[in-house]
Amino acid sequence: MAQINQNYRKLAAGYLFPEIARRSKSYLEAHPGTHLHRLGIGNTTEALPPAIIEGLREQVERLASNATYSGYGDEQGSLPLREALVSYYKAWGVNLQADEFFISDGAKADAANIQSLFVEDSIVAIQDPAYPVYVDSNVIAGRSPSFDHSRGYYDKFVYLQGLEEEGFVPSVPTEKVDLIYLCNPNNPTGAVANHEQLKGFVTYALKHKAVIIYDAAYSEYISDATLPKSIYEIEGAQQCAIEINSFSKFAGFTGVRLGWTIVPHALVSEESEVGELHKMWYRRQCTFFNGASNIAQAGGLAALTPEGLVQSRATVAYYMENARIIREGLLGLNLKVYGGDNAPYLWVKTPLGLSSWQFFDKLLNECQVIATPGSGFGPAGESFIRFSAFGHRENIVAAMQSIKDNLRLENQNER
Amino acid sequence: MAQINQNYRKLAAGYLFPEIARRSKSYLEAHPGTHLHRLGIGNTTEALPPAIIEGLREQVERLASNATYSGYGDEQGSLPLREALVSYYKAWGVNLQADEFFISDGAKADAANIQSLFVEDSIVAIQDPAYPVYVDSNVIAGRSPSFDHSRGYYDKFVYLQGLEEEGFVPSVPTEKVDLIYLCNPNNPTGAVANHEQLKGFVTYALKHKAVIIYDAAYSEYISDATLPKSIYEIEGAQQCAIEINSFSKFAGFTGVRLGWTIVPHALVSEESEVGELHKMWYRRQCTFFNGASNIAQAGGLAALTPEGLVQSRATVAYYMENARIIREGLLGLNLKVYGGDNAPYLWVKTPLGLSSWQFFDKLLNECQVIATPGSGFGPAGESFIRFSAFGHRENIVAAMQSIKDNLRLENQNER
Repeated sequence: MAQINQNYRKLAAGYLFPEIARRSKSYLEAHPGTHLHRLGIGNTTEALPPAIIEGLREQVERLASNATYSGYGDEQGSLPLREALVSYYKAWGVNLQADEFFISDGAKADAANIQSLFVEDSIVAIQDPAYPVYVDSNVIAGRSPSFDHSRGYYDKFVYLQGLEEEGFVPSVPTEKVDLIYLCNPNNPTGAVANHEQLKGFVTYALKHKAVIIYDAAYSEYISDATLPKSIYEIEGAQQCAIEINSFSKFAGFTGVRLGWTIVPHALVSEESEVGELHKMWYRRQCTFFNGASNIAQAGGLAALTPEGLVQSRATVAYYMENARIIREGLLGLNLKVYGGDNAPYLWVKTPLGLSSWQFFDKLLNECQVIATPGSGFGPAGESFIRFSAFGHRENIVAAMQSIKDNLRLENQNER
Repeated sequence: MAQINQNYRKLAAGYLFPEIARRSKSYLEAHPGTHLHRLGIGNTTEALPPAIIEGLREQVERLASNATYSGYGDEQGSLPLREALVSYYKAWGVNLQADEFFISDGAKADAANIQSLFVEDSIVAIQDPAYPVYVDSNVIAGRSPSFDHSRGYYDKFVYLQGLEEEGFVPSVPTEKVDLIYLCNPNNPTGAVANHEQLKGFVTYALKHKAVIIYDAAYSEYISDATLPKSIYEIEGAQQCAIEINSFSKFAGFTGVRLGWTIVPHALVSEESEVGELHKMWYRRQCTFFNGASNIAQAGGLAALTPEGLVQSRATVAYYMENARIIREGLLGLNLKVYGGDNAPYLWVKTPLGLSSWQFFDKLLNECQVIATPGSGFGPAGESFIRFSAFGHRENIVAAMQSIKDNLRLENQNER
């Protein structure tokens, strides 16, 4: 008599993006023919640059001939790609070995699966607000007994709030925790920790033998050269941190699918041997994964060539110009705006005392603009909304024009 | 203080394919310049057919232009691809809905992850011999307390032996189990269950509210039209079975990565509501996965066109001709050979009372041929070796010639 994993039933209903899709759809049904300006989901929109396209094309042609066809590759990814990543990290002074990299089909899967390495009763610390995957994967794995509807929190998890007055970078936990998820630059707030702040987390982790799961998927959006791009820029981090990253937002691979995770040989946890966590992840990937697509890997390798890097960074700069336009537009309406300088997300305080979803509805109804309600990322996100800078320039400009022309900020009683 | 998931330490050492690689490498180091005939790993070798290459090319070009670029797709895969799979199943009388299909990056990941839907104390039944992923994923998930070195079995798992005298198709469990993994056609034995045998499993599962995890990755190799290609050809299977399949062996996507899993709405387990398991897998995939590569999906769609099907099946026929050549060669040496008629694997009884690894070494040393020791798939695989029919024709012919010329079957005392 097979019985279901009851942890799934603990997951709070109403996944954020499906709910946005539902409300957008009903608006369109009620207002047929309307054009919606979508600044919600963080999805890339610009074509892949020529160097990457060429890399993809070449791999497709290799698959077309018996002489160059290849089947299964190594589960941990192709060696040339891992070596290119070693060089990529060297550029900002981080020394890693090729076999410390595990190529995957994207950061989301790794961020969700990495908890498999740790015992079920681990105490998990998660930023609030945060990308939902860290929370949900740990709920499914049984690390929370229940969802507390009154607080909006899962019991037993430790939430690290990114407070407005602290620029949304959380402080280290005040209690003992085992796993600490850090998304830096943060999705959704766009906040980026400086060297000193990251050092605080590394010091905490080394002291308490905690492990930091560091999601750096937006690291290429950091333009301030004084800010670290990798947790391994902090001394001691290789003993206490796993870093996850992705070609999605950097090189436009949201649909192509490619990412990587670094599990250093030096990483240890309580009672583990040096090297054991590295070997466990290798075993986990060999068992649960069969390697990323060789076409995607060829594209990733092309993205890491000098030409590919220049072209990919030009696309990043394009999105960051979008961010500047959004920021200026919103500041012009006297809204409070955070992020958007070293991250493709802008975190905006809702006006008029509105809740996140109320402001979502107001933007939708008055301006036909979709943004992402901050409360969908956790209770501390309430009264904020996230704007994404991913989009074609003309759409970003049109969205901001619509907000400027149509958003009614004077009337507090309209709802 | 992070602590590791101790279940990883329960995994028996010496993963099969790495050990084969190690022995091959040391042979080559001792005999530099030797050519090895590799009939071991089941990895495709033939170029992708033109219709699929064209599908891949077109998607790469779509990514090169802003007008046709696309980023994140649905986690469950593109609707046209799922609809094409609906039609694919209709061809042998199986009616499924598009939203019962979940596109993935391959059968291995799904076969390893599907156990997440069920409680940790589920009793798992696994074929012996079997592809190692079913066992290892359940060990990591904590479903066995320990490995019994004397028996070569994980405690608490129920092993269903495919006995030689029964053609290696196992009988239904004699005790109550919760999950039943069936790989059909079987890897490694090449055995294929007939309608009556599969009906036995479905009847058992319905009676005991067990769930069958049916891995059909080799279904396209079934040439005998009387044998079922899908578990859903058996009445009642939609209430008790999940089917996993792949483009890897059918369309040569071992490196491109694409598969699918079917979780029918009708599937139930003890205490689950109708539709709940379907929704759970949807939630699981939305949380742990971000969709298969859109390039791979375009290739999959091309593989399912009439042209793509004809061309892919021609490659399957090519491998099956290899299987025929291997079979005839081995039968000519009076070896006992199973499988290879409806599966790309031949399951060969070791001669001279040799163990699987002894015969592996003998083939390597005398014939420079690599096959896969049967004992690596479970204790019941001892005294068998697996030949894979994946390879270029000339290599298969050369390997068989080398076996014919060099294998010494008369001398029992050589080792």
